[in-house]
Amino acid sequence: MKLYQSIAEKIRERIEQGYYQVNEKLPSIRTLSQEHDVSVSTAQQALLFLEKEHWIEVRAKSGSYVKAQLAAAEMPQPCRPAQYPLKVSQWKEVRALRSLYKGHSDDFLYLSSGMSDIDAPTLKPLLKIMSHLTIREGVRCLTPDTLQGAVELREQIARLALDGGTRLHPDDIITTTGCQEALAISLQALTKAGDVVAVESPGFYGLMQILKALDLQALEIPAHADDGMSLDALEMALDQWPIKAILVIPTENNPLGSTMPDENKVRLLKMTQRYNTPIIEDDIYGDLRYKQPRPRTLHSFDTEGRVILCSSFSKTMSAALRIGWVAPGRYKERIEHMKYIGTANTTTLTQLAIAEFIKQGYYERHVRTVRQQYRLNRDQLTHMLQTYFPKGTRISAPRGAYILWIELPGDVDTLLLNKRLVQHKIQIAPGVIFSASGKYRNCLRINYARPVPKSAVLAISQEAKELLAESLMPQ
Amino acid sequence: MKLYQSIAEKIRERIEQGYYQVNEKLPSIRTLSQEHDVSVSTAQQALLFLEKEHWIEVRAKSGSYVKAQLAAAEMPQPCRPAQYPLKVSQWKEVRALRSLYKGHSDDFLYLSSGMSDIDAPTLKPLLKIMSHLTIREGVRCLTPDTLQGAVELREQIARLALDGGTRLHPDDIITTTGCQEALAISLQALTKAGDVVAVESPGFYGLMQILKALDLQALEIPAHADDGMSLDALEMALDQWPIKAILVIPTENNPLGSTMPDENKVRLLKMTQRYNTPIIEDDIYGDLRYKQPRPRTLHSFDTEGRVILCSSFSKTMSAALRIGWVAPGRYKERIEHMKYIGTANTTTLTQLAIAEFIKQGYYERHVRTVRQQYRLNRDQLTHMLQTYFPKGTRISAPRGAYILWIELPGDVDTLLLNKRLVQHKIQIAPGVIFSASGKYRNCLRINYARPVPKSAVLAISQEAKELLAESLMPQ
Repeated sequence: MKLYQSIAEKIRERIEQGYYQVNEKLPSIRTLSQEHDVSVSTAQQALLFLEKEHWIEVRAKSGSYVKAQLAAAEMPQPCRPAQYPLKVSQWKEVRALRSLYKGHSDDFLYLSSGMSDIDAPTLKPLLKIMSHLTIREGVRCLTPDTLQGAVELREQIARLALDGGTRLHPDDIITTTGCQEALAISLQALTKAGDVVAVESPGFYGLMQILKALDLQALEIPAHADDGMSLDALEMALDQWPIKAILVIPTENNPLGSTMPDENKVRLLKMTQRYNTPIIEDDIYGDLRYKQPRPRTLHSFDTEGRVILCSSFSKTMSAALRIGWVAPGRYKERIEHMKYIGTANTTTLTQLAIAEFIKQGYYERHVRTVRQQYRLNRDQLTHMLQTYFPKGTRISAPRGAYILWIELPGDVDTLLLNKRLVQHKIQIAPGVIFSASGKYRNCLRINYARPVPKSAVLAISQEAKELLAESLMPQ
Repeated sequence: MKLYQSIAEKIRERIEQGYYQVNEKLPSIRTLSQEHDVSVSTAQQALLFLEKEHWIEVRAKSGSYVKAQLAAAEMPQPCRPAQYPLKVSQWKEVRALRSLYKGHSDDFLYLSSGMSDIDAPTLKPLLKIMSHLTIREGVRCLTPDTLQGAVELREQIARLALDGGTRLHPDDIITTTGCQEALAISLQALTKAGDVVAVESPGFYGLMQILKALDLQALEIPAHADDGMSLDALEMALDQWPIKAILVIPTENNPLGSTMPDENKVRLLKMTQRYNTPIIEDDIYGDLRYKQPRPRTLHSFDTEGRVILCSSFSKTMSAALRIGWVAPGRYKERIEHMKYIGTANTTTLTQLAIAEFIKQGYYERHVRTVRQQYRLNRDQLTHMLQTYFPKGTRISAPRGAYILWIELPGDVDTLLLNKRLVQHKIQIAPGVIFSASGKYRNCLRINYARPVPKSAVLAISQEAKELLAESLMPQ
């Protein structure tokens, strides 16, 4: 973060805390520069930046004034509790979305993806490290690792996990081919075909598809964009159904951006104790919380080894590396077996490279930088959506990571919207794939890891408005 | 291969073909040098090499004579046909074997492993390619690939597959995290818990463990070390049991070293047509056939898309790369789904590196060289086993790859043998893990990708003889 940005950040915090009120005049540039002990031009840059970000307005011959914020958009509404467990469908839709993607040579704007910003300059040292490792370590890079994975990496993972309050010994960790494998082998270890699994609704579609592939039934528990899974609904479900596992993304939920408060984590563990229900915690976005310290993991409250913690470097670094991990707790032997039969060991080179990247301090610098960038992107995108999207649009308010969940008003079908967006070379993630039962047809998920161009927001908005108008026309 | 080695090879072939008979005197060094158009010293080196390899003996003041070969060891006997399908066990034994392995810093001699010779000088260019790629391609190495995998690699796979008579378009291929994933997702796509799957017996334990993990039942079809799976036994089994899939390694079978003759491949396809049974073909060792051209794949005879072809670069290059592939035939959609939910995409960098290694001609040079080395290692090892192992030992006769299957006489328990070998810092693969039903307790598998030291053969032989003696003592 540049100096002027950190000054802007301090002023922005004062506005948010009400220290500077709406319509109040800010101190002069000279006063600000003295107060923050920076040059006049830095103070000026800070104000220009705040103006661009819609926090202040500059009135000619007068000064800078705190701008009235758009009223915070309302958050998307939780769905009604599920009546019964369901088989997951929507593979066709997921497949169609993935099939369109042509890889690196593509000129589409995939707002639909879960991809991190792989162009971030702070990620560049990783390429150098990989290049050096192949020369320095030589044959070591060609040596298959143990089933648990490279100990160098497991040591670093254990160290980083402390940020979320998670205490792990390197031996408590198995590295995996991305978080997807961690989730899949955990579910395979805990369930058999036909079993009922509780999931958040809306829920990450990659996870929904695991349920489909393993022939499991999804019990959709409503989740709120603020605090996540409804524990009242879950409690009722636990009494009613033989739930074999609970899947939850407590921190920076995908797609909702919600975070489960600590007291809910404690309650969740307590209410599942009676049934001895295993919980799979996906913490893949946890390290991307804008404000530090990040929230504690559910795992950190668990004293029974009943929470299986899954994560990866796909969101913090790059999904092309295919390195994730699982802390399997008391289910270690079964999960290790599933890892063995699924892929045996994990790629050696990318494991060693990530370990080195963390060890040399690049990881902490990198996530610190992208967190700031993602927060700026969120603010810009939210502002554009509030300005240009149809009236009545509801928007999530993530406090980390880079995905936004949007609920359009009326009967707009986002599958249809996506078809129309092909001509604009834009794709969003349609809401329906986040549900086992075809819910969220009027919702969409947008990735803002890179700043979303205004032209894209306008294109989506225009198509959405047309669909909305068509839906209101008499049949 | 050095010049003298290729001359020695020509002479050896003549001995094998009976052109030079046992006890016949070979032409003089001068004659040989003229005949093969090489220097006298090269001809001399060739003879020294053949002497070291036990093909000839040098009699003082007389010349070189063709040596009587040890009578070829008898091959291991096939087991009796299975009476009924069985659940697989032996995870404890497999896990124990894997847990002992400590990775690269290990000083154990793992004759138990399936690892290729990763120290081969012809593999070195791969490290350079990986180093250059991270710099040259930069962010491309951090870009997640499509679900099917990097097209650059799929093009090269399609080209190489022609050697086995396999005709594939790059779109017919999905890259995977090693062959293990290819096999696992194929089985997941074809079966559900409780289903019966026909496997070769003895059979690769990694595959047996997939059956265990997916709660499938194994129907063990006896296989012979010469021509593989007994089709008579399979035919009977097909009539009797609802077999959902057949798993077979037709070329350079693991562990038997057998190769299914082409007429058997045709018969196998014909006899399964009636039941429309899908066949999963594991061709992971196919490219390591010593004599070229390599045998055709079963897939190359298939006109119905019913054979799923699985392979990888783990045996030809290194298992640390975790790059395999599957040609899913008519089961493409299901298998793609399983790939998606299991690991999503495959590591970008190692895919691109292998593609480049093949494209630049390094792959063909590399496998040509290691094939020769593996054949030499086989001859040396076989000779040592025949010389030092207990009388009555039966040995397989692989025509490719680097694993040998050994049947010890009497009641020697190779699990016990392995326990005793820990003190020698040696591990072999005990026979019992190659069976669903605890067969092959007196068998073992040995890896000879690197020359097996005589000291190791002596240690195994000594412990085996002691166990044999103990088993013969009155209780």
